[in-house]
Parts: sequence; C-alpha cells; structure tokens
Amino acid sequence: MSEEQPHANLAVPAFRTEKVPKTQTQNGHGTVWRFGGADKAAKASTVTLRGVIYMLFDNCSKDVKKTILPLGHGDPSVYPCFRTCIEAEDAVVNVLRSGKSNSYCPGAGILPAEVIYCTITQTEHNNNTVVAVADYLNRDLPNKLTPDDIFLTAGCNQGIELVFESLARPNANILLPRPGFPHYDARAAYSGLEIRKFDLLPDREWEIDLEGVEAVADENTVAIVVINPNNPCGNVYSHDHLHKVAETARKLGIMVITDEVYDQTIFGDNPFVPMAKFASIVPVLTLGGMSKGWVVPGWKIGWIALNDPEGVFESTKVVQSIEQSLDITPDPSTIIQAALPEILEKVDKNFFAKKNKILKHNVDLVCDRLKDIRCVVCPKKPESCTYLLTKLELSLLDGIKDDIDFCVKLAREENLVFLPGKAK
Amino acid sequence: MSEEQPHANLAVPAFRTEKVPKTQTQNGHGTVWRFGGADKAAKASTVTLRGVIYMLFDNCSKDVKKTILPLGHGDPSVYPCFRTCIEAEDAVVNVLRSGKSNSYCPGAGILPAEVIYCTITQTEHNNNTVVAVADYLNRDLPNKLTPDDIFLTAGCNQGIELVFESLARPNANILLPRPGFPHYDARAAYSGLEIRKFDLLPDREWEIDLEGVEAVADENTVAIVVINPNNPCGNVYSHDHLHKVAETARKLGIMVITDEVYDQTIFGDNPFVPMAKFASIVPVLTLGGMSKGWVVPGWKIGWIALNDPEGVFESTKVVQSIEQSLDITPDPSTIIQAALPEILEKVDKNFFAKKNKILKHNVDLVCDRLKDIRCVVCPKKPESCTYLLTKLELSLLDGIKDDIDFCVKLAREENLVFLPGKAK
Repeated sequence: MSEEQPHANLAVPAFRTEKVPKTQTQNGHGTVWRFGGADKAAKASTVTLRGVIYMLFDNCSKDVKKTILPLGHGDPSVYPCFRTCIEAEDAVVNVLRSGKSNSYCPGAGILPAEVIYCTITQTEHNNNTVVAVADYLNRDLPNKLTPDDIFLTAGCNQGIELVFESLARPNANILLPRPGFPHYDARAAYSGLEIRKFDLLPDREWEIDLEGVEAVADENTVAIVVINPNNPCGNVYSHDHLHKVAETARKLGIMVITDEVYDQTIFGDNPFVPMAKFASIVPVLTLGGMSKGWVVPGWKIGWIALNDPEGVFESTKVVQSIEQSLDITPDPSTIIQAALPEILEKVDKNFFAKKNKILKHNVDLVCDRLKDIRCVVCPKKPESCTYLLTKLELSLLDGIKDDIDFCVKLAREENLVFLPGKAK
Repeated sequence: MSEEQPHANLAVPAFRTEKVPKTQTQNGHGTVWRFGGADKAAKASTVTLRGVIYMLFDNCSKDVKKTILPLGHGDPSVYPCFRTCIEAEDAVVNVLRSGKSNSYCPGAGILPAEVIYCTITQTEHNNNTVVAVADYLNRDLPNKLTPDDIFLTAGCNQGIELVFESLARPNANILLPRPGFPHYDARAAYSGLEIRKFDLLPDREWEIDLEGVEAVADENTVAIVVINPNNPCGNVYSHDHLHKVAETARKLGIMVITDEVYDQTIFGDNPFVPMAKFASIVPVLTLGGMSKGWVVPGWKIGWIALNDPEGVFESTKVVQSIEQSLDITPDPSTIIQAALPEILEKVDKNFFAKKNKILKHNVDLVCDRLKDIRCVVCPKKPESCTYLLTKLELSLLDGIKDDIDFCVKLAREENLVFLPGKAK
C-alpha cells in the first residue's frame, strides 16, 4: 500500500533504542562492568519491518471473536494448499534416514577435524549439490555455469549478507530499487554500504528508471540490485529491458546483483528471463534458493551463482572475498544440502503450476474487488510473487494523513493488517 | 601436537592472498569495473586451518594402496558407530511429515510477511524450542533461566559470531585461551576485537593461568572465553576452579563467555559443572548446541543462554545488541528448531554413554601406544571432547624443525595426518 512513491528512509516507529550503550555500568555491588552491547546492528535492525508489524498488531482488537486478517504477509507456507511437494519432503527424509549427512560440510572450513574429514567423505555431497544447482540454473543460459561458480548459502538472505560484506569498502555505494525488499537496506547499512535508490516506474509496468540509475551512480558505485521476478511489485522484466539494464551497468562499470528467488512463482504471460543471459555484457551475480519456489522459507537453503564469462569477478577478487566470508559464516544444514540434488532433479512442474494457479486466482479476486474501492488503486496487476502493491488516493480519504495512518486505523477498526508502502 | 606452548599468532601457510584488491580493473573491452572484493574476511579466513590441512593432504602419497589416516579430525559423525540416536532422526522426520514447520520463524524478522505470519502460527514453535532449551540447561542451575534468556543460533559457531559482533567496540579486547579453538580467533579478527591470549597450564591439568589473565586484561577488556569441557585439551574444569574464574572476571569487570558444547562428551571422573552456577558472581553467557552431544554438527542448531540474575546484560545493552544482530542474520532451519523439544525431552543417556565409552576406549588405546614413542608425550590423558593433545620432544628428533615440519614429514612418509599444535 503506497502513498505516491514509497520513501527510501522512512522513520518507522523504533522499537529498539539506537543510543550508544554505556560501556561501564555500575551495579549495586560496586562492580564496574567494562563491556557493553554495540549498536552496530541497531540501525540495520530498525530498517526491518518488525517495528511496523508489531505496532499494527498492537492496534488490532483483542476481542477473540473479531478475527485478525493478516493480509500483509508474503509467506504462503503455513496454508495447507501451499504445502511443499512430497518429493521435497521425501528427499530430506531419505537423507536423514541414511545417517550420512550429519557431519560438517567442507564449506565450514574451521575445525581442522571437519575439514580433514570432509576431504575424504563429505566433499561428495557438497559437490553433488553445487553440480545440481549449476545444472538447474544452466537450463536457459548461453554461458554455462560450472560447479565452481556456485556457492551454497543458508537462504537467499545470507547470500545478500555475504555479497554485501564482500563488496563493502570505504565510501562505496550500492543502487537499490524503490519499492524494494527491506533486507537489502538492512544488510547494506550493516556492511557500511551507502544506499542510493532508483525508482521502479508504476506507469511503465514497474520497469527500472534507467536514467535515474545513471543520475545517482558515481565512481564509488559498485553494484545495482535487480529483483526479478519483482518483489514487491509483482512484475516480470522483459528480455529487452534486462538487456538495457546490462548495458547501463556496463557503462557505469558496476556489477549486477540479481535476486531471482521468485523464478518459480510466475502466473502471468511474461516469461522469466534470467539476468545471466547478459553475462557477456556485464558480470552477473545471481541469488536464488528453494524458499519461494518450493514454499519452504524455513529450510534455509539458497545459492550464489557467479555468471561471468570474462572472469571479472576473479580479477576484481570478488570470488576470493566471497570464499573468505563463507569460511567464517554458518553453512546451510547438511541434511538440506544433501537433499537438494534429488529435489532439483525431481522438479515437479505440476506442483509449481498448481501453486501459481492459486496465486493467480487470489490476485484476480482481489483486483476485482478493488474496482469498487476508489481510494485504493492497483497500477498493475501482479504476474509474479506474493504481494499486491496499490496506490492510496489520499484526496479521497478524510482524516487519513498517510499510508501508515491508514494502516493503523484499518488495524484498529477492522483487525485488518496491511503493509504500509513506506515500510517496503 | 604441540611444540612447547602453541603460539597465538602463527604464520600458517597462507592459501588466500591478503592483498588489498584492486577496485578498478581494466578488462580487454575497455570497461573500468568499479567494484572489487573486500579483504575484510581475508585475515579471519587465514586463521582457520584449511590452509594447513590442505597442505598436509597435498603432502600425502597419491598411491591408492597407501591409505590416508586422517587422525587430525574431531568430528566422529561420519563413523557408523557414532551415528546419532534414532530419537533425534525421528523427531526431525516427524516435523517434516507434519508440513507445519516450513515457514520463516519469528527470529527472521525481515520480511513483513513472515513476521505477521509468525505472530499467528509460528511463534508457538519457537516458544516451545526456547522453553525446551531453558529446561535442558536448568537441570543443575541455582538461578533458573527463562525462555527469554535463550536465543537460538545456526550452530554454536554462529553464537560466537553474534556475541563478538555485539561486543565489538573500538579498542575493545577479548581474552582467548591458548591452546584454543581457531573459530574464536577468526571471528574476533573479523569483528575487530583485539585478541589477548591467556595460557592453559599443562602441568596443572590445563587449568586457566588466572594470574596471566589478570596480567593481560586492562580497562578495554570486555570478556574472557572459557571452553569447558575443554577443546582441544580434553579436561573438565572443577567447581573450585570455575569459582575462581568467576571471581577473577568480576574483579576485572568482564563477562564470562563459556562454550559448553561438549557437555555431553565426557568420559573421565571429573563431573561437568556449568559456568552458570556462578552467575550470581559474574554474568555468564553460555554457548551450546546439538553438534557434539548428538554428533550432528551439520544440522546447525545451537543456542546462547544469558545467565544473569543481576540483569547486567540488560543494563549494558548486551541483550539488545544480540537481539538486533539476530534480526539480520540467518536462523537455524525451522525443521530442526521444531524438532529440538522432542530431541531434548527424549535425551537418551544410553546413547551418550555408548558414545563416550568408545571415545574412552580410543583414548586408552592411543595413550597406551604412545608410551613406546618417547618423542611424543601426552601431559594429561583427555577425559572429554575428541582431541588428544601431545607435546613433541624436539631434542629427541633428528632433522625436525618444529611441529609443522613433523606433521608435513609424517604426512609425506606415512600418509598420517596429525594437526600441528601451532595451528590450534
């Protein structure tokens, strides 16, 4: 729900203090404690939406007879109709019952023990997994990925974390879409990357404002983030538009980070085109995972794929930096890692089709009903992902200050929880 | 394997470059790429032992008839005799087959969707899990933990990461044991915490050199790390010694971080005493997890427990900082989280006893054989964990420069891989 364009840096109701903690605290017993919690994550933490969400729920009526309708969520996995496919469950059960994937994996790289072990017994698992991910992604790519181009992550969000930590240098800035996905803002803030926003254009089917991109980029810009299929706008970018994005990025000398975690959640006519098709123009780092396609966000398995036929990621040491970061961060659970090849091999297209048909039905239903509500306008019917973004016509609403005000009053009066666009 | 005391900052053969990457790279097509991989993780990454391990394996004979004996490992989970108990496998299978734990968990806190969802369906899981962990840890504690004192982590190593990120401030230093566990060094380096080492005393059953602790601490010291049962020394600290550690920490005004991940891997006579018994003297942050006790390091589930009856972690904002860091880091897989209550409830003491009996048998065997090898002396027979630390008598060895030299030659001549103490 958006009031004009959502703002980049909104002042969400802070539910964490951002004050610098005292590092010396006198307690009742005369001890001066010399430690204190750092505020490094404070800012990143407030960029997340928990504050807004909790505030909205607090505004809902506690009357149990008045059901709370949480329509701000984008995770369908708790509904039985969106339960993951039996093949995915079976694959993990098979791994568990084999007893062969309980060890550390090679990526851990910390305990000598594990590393030694892995070299003789475990490498096979991880190798199978990265081979399977490369095969899965190579379906439509002219420049094929090798297993060495794949890094497994504990969900797509950890991919963002690793890449941002690897790209951060003093004064570096990164281009993020508006509207966007708040985890990018949170992790950029945490890594010390300056955030510069470019607009997605509602009147042009949420295409990227490429002139705007060129206007905000400078010599300290390192990357542009492209979310496709787009969360939260629900569009799927065309081949031509992605080609232009690649040309623009090359002109600016920046890499493209593309978040394609929704590549199996499409229910419109535009086909999905992987950004990596343009890797001969610009190096493309693809983020993906099982969470959305298979509706298992809690399983925490994702991947980073480096599409880079010219070897720029190698020469700029991006590969090395990601490898080093992976050395010291937690790996995805080995039982999911080991199950991934079977899951990807047995991709059940009927499962995706059924899931996407339900989503399409829901979108049609909501858009149909919205026609009768003049103050809430949907600029473009979603054809992917799980959100529906609308524009709020404030001129038609008495006594509503902005989108947050609207959402608070909706929660208070109707127990209906929407997500304010400013928070997105 | 140690030559005198292992050194704190050894120069291990670097397998990663530490050079600052070029941020502008000219490729063949005239594009100046403005991004580059950061070297932030480079130092932390070389503190890990992969370099040493790979180098030792490279020195082994490639003759397949000459079996490689990887005796440097500490992860028994790949051996069938150390397979985890059926109760643990069953618990995870039950969760998978329920289809009820595929969603994001409340800790994720990033996607509004998930957070809203969790507040109505998922919180129960996480609540059950932290209640179960608190109950498990409260067995022997005078000051009981509440579920609010428990934070779930993606393995014990992520606990270290979160705590160090939360404690890091400019000029802060942290006290780490020597010998120790290299992940502490890696994460301290990454977080920018200065490392100060204190010795564990082989002649006093690996007790902590408390005078040494006082000598290296100053007004910028924030914490001391106590690993108990001790990896890699294999001792279990007595009640009296831990009491003295608590008194020392209080005198210095620093918190105690205690790593008790081996609390179910004890096969000697000294009973395990949780550091939290002394939480009324000094605030104690306990790190634990399933990895060692249940022999499932790859499952990636651990916890942080804040033992702090005086509320110092709250007043010094350590709690808030950990919560903020958790907001933006990956959670443990929900299927393991949801299985944890059943696993902890059905703790199978026979499983632990069987596992520890095998370890004791192996230790006895090795110590017995070592009696005939005069140049390798074990100062104290291990009574816990999975390593055996020995001293190398260099005066008895011709043509051996140090422990790394010894290990390289052993790998080259006998395909036997030990871990050099310097690397530990």
